Amino acid sequence: MRTNYCGKIDTKYLDQTVTLFGWVNKRRDLGGVVFIDLRDREGIVQVVVDPDTASAFETASSVRSEFCLSVAGIVRARPSAQVNKDMSTGAIEILAKEVTIINKAPALPLDWNQENSEEQRLKYRYLDLRRPLMTNRLIFRSKVTSIVRRFLEDNDFLDIETPILTKATPEGARDYLVPSRTHKGEFFALPQSPQLFKQLLMMSGMDKYYQIVKCFRDEDLRADRQPEFTQIDIETSFLDAGGVMEITERLVKELFQKLLKVDLGNFPHMSFAEAMRRFGSDKPDLRNPLELTDVASALTHIEFKVFSGPANDANGRVAAICVPGGASLSRKQIDQYGSFVGVYGAKGLAWIKVNELAKGLEGLQSPILKFLDAVAIDAILSATKAEDGDILLFGAGDYTTVTEALGALRIKLGEDLSLLQGQWKPLWVVDFPMFEEADGRLHALHHPFTAPSDSSIEKLSNNPKEALSNAYDMVLNGVELGGGSVRIHTMEMQAKVFELLGIESEEAQEKFGFLLEALKYGTPPHAGLAFGLDRLVMLMVGADSIRDVMAFPKTNTAACPLTGAPGRANPQQLKELSIATLIDPSKDAGSE
Amino acid sequence: MRTNYCGKIDTKYLDQTVTLFGWVNKRRDLGGVVFIDLRDREGIVQVVVDPDTASAFETASSVRSEFCLSVAGIVRARPSAQVNKDMSTGAIEILAKEVTIINKAPALPLDWNQENSEEQRLKYRYLDLRRPLMTNRLIFRSKVTSIVRRFLEDNDFLDIETPILTKATPEGARDYLVPSRTHKGEFFALPQSPQLFKQLLMMSGMDKYYQIVKCFRDEDLRADRQPEFTQIDIETSFLDAGGVMEITERLVKELFQKLLKVDLGNFPHMSFAEAMRRFGSDKPDLRNPLELTDVASALTHIEFKVFSGPANDANGRVAAICVPGGASLSRKQIDQYGSFVGVYGAKGLAWIKVNELAKGLEGLQSPILKFLDAVAIDAILSATKAEDGDILLFGAGDYTTVTEALGALRIKLGEDLSLLQGQWKPLWVVDFPMFEEADGRLHALHHPFTAPSDSSIEKLSNNPKEALSNAYDMVLNGVELGGGSVRIHTMEMQAKVFELLGIESEEAQEKFGFLLEALKYGTPPHAGLAFGLDRLVMLMVGADSIRDVMAFPKTNTAACPLTGAPGRANPQQLKELSIATLIDPSKDAGSE
Repeated sequence: MRTNYCGKIDTKYLDQTVTLFGWVNKRRDLGGVVFIDLRDREGIVQVVVDPDTASAFETASSVRSEFCLSVAGIVRARPSAQVNKDMSTGAIEILAKEVTIINKAPALPLDWNQENSEEQRLKYRYLDLRRPLMTNRLIFRSKVTSIVRRFLEDNDFLDIETPILTKATPEGARDYLVPSRTHKGEFFALPQSPQLFKQLLMMSGMDKYYQIVKCFRDEDLRADRQPEFTQIDIETSFLDAGGVMEITERLVKELFQKLLKVDLGNFPHMSFAEAMRRFGSDKPDLRNPLELTDVASALTHIEFKVFSGPANDANGRVAAICVPGGASLSRKQIDQYGSFVGVYGAKGLAWIKVNELAKGLEGLQSPILKFLDAVAIDAILSATKAEDGDILLFGAGDYTTVTEALGALRIKLGEDLSLLQGQWKPLWVVDFPMFEEADGRLHALHHPFTAPSDSSIEKLSNNPKEALSNAYDMVLNGVELGGGSVRIHTMEMQAKVFELLGIESEEAQEKFGFLLEALKYGTPPHAGLAFGLDRLVMLMVGADSIRDVMAFPKTNTAACPLTGAPGRANPQQLKELSIATLIDPSKDAGSE
Repeated sequence: MRTNYCGKIDTKYLDQTVTLFGWVNKRRDLGGVVFIDLRDREGIVQVVVDPDTASAFETASSVRSEFCLSVAGIVRARPSAQVNKDMSTGAIEILAKEVTIINKAPALPLDWNQENSEEQRLKYRYLDLRRPLMTNRLIFRSKVTSIVRRFLEDNDFLDIETPILTKATPEGARDYLVPSRTHKGEFFALPQSPQLFKQLLMMSGMDKYYQIVKCFRDEDLRADRQPEFTQIDIETSFLDAGGVMEITERLVKELFQKLLKVDLGNFPHMSFAEAMRRFGSDKPDLRNPLELTDVASALTHIEFKVFSGPANDANGRVAAICVPGGASLSRKQIDQYGSFVGVYGAKGLAWIKVNELAKGLEGLQSPILKFLDAVAIDAILSATKAEDGDILLFGAGDYTTVTEALGALRIKLGEDLSLLQGQWKPLWVVDFPMFEEADGRLHALHHPFTAPSDSSIEKLSNNPKEALSNAYDMVLNGVELGGGSVRIHTMEMQAKVFELLGIESEEAQEKFGFLLEALKYGTPPHAGLAFGLDRLVMLMVGADSIRDVMAFPKTNTAACPLTGAPGRANPQQLKELSIATLIDPSKDAGSE
């Protein structure tokens, strides 16, 4: 039997005989002696095999990388010159008495010393995960879920499982569907979240629910999405927004404290409106010091329509980002930023370089100076607090376009110019609008079960577009870690919101009749939040992608190169399910 | 804010003002005073509302069952005559100062005081779960998973998630399928277990893995199955069968100790062969004292072919169950047991009543006595240790039929005659055959990744039907709580077993090529076990069905009466998935 993990052998085992299992991380033959770095999930220990122990030496001389070995030997101190303080095992080494090959390995198809293609890494995921970097990420993730569970259980939350085979809803265009065998022609859907079930659990009096649960979304895998992802899902009765934010903030602080020894401090609260105005984003990265400054009021009177048009339009916006030191940007760089904002619909990127304020107009440099007067320029310089060496970059147009374009530009400038300050900048974004308008209809900004804020209840009747919801997002370093809300807990309010969303009563009955019915029976006030576990772990370990913190992720075409999923189904089985495929995959080489 | 749960208010709150939230379990108006039993998930507390507090009294007088209330009041001792020692809150009551209706409720569609149909219970599951019996079961389940997780984490197991969208395999007739949007005409399958992924995790060096994970099986929901069920899934490297059995036995003992204050003791080990021989089952309920006794050797010489035929056949069996006190069974009862074993293929049920041994043949009563001689009768009586008042029930025929029929009869007799002794009788069943033969082919008794026992490796080549596997099942009270095995960890052995199973090398490559490939790269020896969480909890809480320990189970037609799942899919969505339904569910009233 194993004495302990390789990575756990240290000076407290000195002079003891230990038995270890692990993989050959590296073998070196030096001065007639074989050195094996033996690795397991907890770390690496150095094994020394002397020719005196002939059988062990012979075996050790034959091992290659990634052979699985058992080693028995005596723990001894390393010569002081060889002590490696960066390794937990760096003060000792194992003088081998026995070396046994448990299983051999050919040369690996992955070269750990260089970048491997994602396809190759996923195909040989079991080898990719042997890399200490990847192993440690999965260990870290396991620690995160362990701490989360213990924290929530210690706070009276019950772990309750909700179904994976749930109702397909007509509007669930991103639902994964599962044909039913018993109810032919009908389908289950895999849940995008357990939202309604967790609300039903509150109606059943469970009071505090949590679940670390797989959710599913069948969407284009742009950016960093996966078909299945994991939520830390939380719901509680009789707590208001403040109560939920308090406990979930405490949970995240505990994670950072325990796992990273970081004190996140108290999370500031910022309204959605302020976040959009100052940062052009509802999930601002507060490590980025750049802000959007509104300058419209200085520009209403000028002739230059590009500025004065939106400045005089209630739905317009004119704003500037003042980039410290940005006066050194080349014309080419500025043009590139112009193209960048163009992607977001901005029609150009006006700019003013502030070379030397003391020189007045002479100290400024800009193609648009000629369109501005002294009043406007003074107001802009003062509002943006521009200093010598800065550049001002302008957006002008309708509010949404300017805000999004400058919001994206702010992020890009922050990265390009290495402006980020501090390591961790959490905040709560609150006071979201209930609705957003598109195609002449109202849509729920969060979801249709979100309660309005107390002060907005009247507005639902008078002016729903102005109504604010009782929702809250936790944001860290520009990433939305989690989002939640107080839920509607009366049938009347839920019916009202469905009506505002244009879900007619018949449709509401068909889709959500069971919810409306359930709301009748003494439903408690309830609220909750869901964290994206993958993103949370990704941020905490500093990975670039959520794929790097999942054991077996899919590619960006939602396939698994390891197992070959998805695959062809048995025709007999499809017949039993009463479905047919309209495309024969064997003839559709394009999708492979 | 709430002071504590209703069920947690006791004498330590005496004379304090408390605020509680909960539901009206019952209201009584007695002697001009209103009594409300206020319930939350933790229990019930008695609230007294006096007419002196006019507003509270008025409100309290109007509340009905299942209204959601908040109550503020002072905790006082109950008059000693009213102390209820069966309730945690039975020594106190709340003298209400304020009673507020949070949400009303109409009369419930479920009557908790009588049996409700399963359909109705599932349709109003949120109300069904409010019943303290059901609430307590979900709380208990949450405690089980919490203890399991902490135990495994404290034993170095990592919680690692495996995919839900996995590979559809041609033979996976019971797989739920999920059409892929990106790879048109292809399908994912929902996993029946994470077997291959957990083995891959061992190959990746994770060493000790666990997951409490949903698994899926699309089968007829006879007996007590659910389309989705939950496994406690465990896998470990470098441990043998004994090591896995030791740690998982310790886990189950800890659960029973912590949650039921029961010491299960050490689990006996019994070979598959012994279990089948003595109990006619590979999951014997050891609370049942009845056993199958082989009597063939006493019957080889007699004329009576019904007995001597199988007694002289290597594949035959003649066995008897001796039922204490069974001589009092009526002819009708015996006939009914005869019909019962007929279901299992037995051709009849011979019997001998042992009325008075001292009287010799005279003391016996049986239609078959005339076919037996004294030698046979003496041998039977001696082998079965029959005593006065017992009945002997015989099975004779081929080994499997007799064993299954008498095994089922043993269970039925145990129930009918209330013979079960003791509350908890765990055991390990070991030494399973590697294969069973059917349709002239070998099939894996567990699964094709199960390793042979060390002593059976040679038999794989010579006599595979006799080979034993290194598998083990944990059985409690006749229920298989969990099963596992040592896995094959070399490519050569895996290929050999595939070959024996008739999985040709091309087919093996297509289905399991990735596993065979993975086995090459220094795979460690590994073994594991999976518990059925639903069954475990069901047994521990004494529920009759796994549906009673799941929050939102499906009916026996795999439907959810609450949400209406499964349902019709959007035709546009089916088109995007390149599938068509062959049946229009709106015209198929039969499936509703």
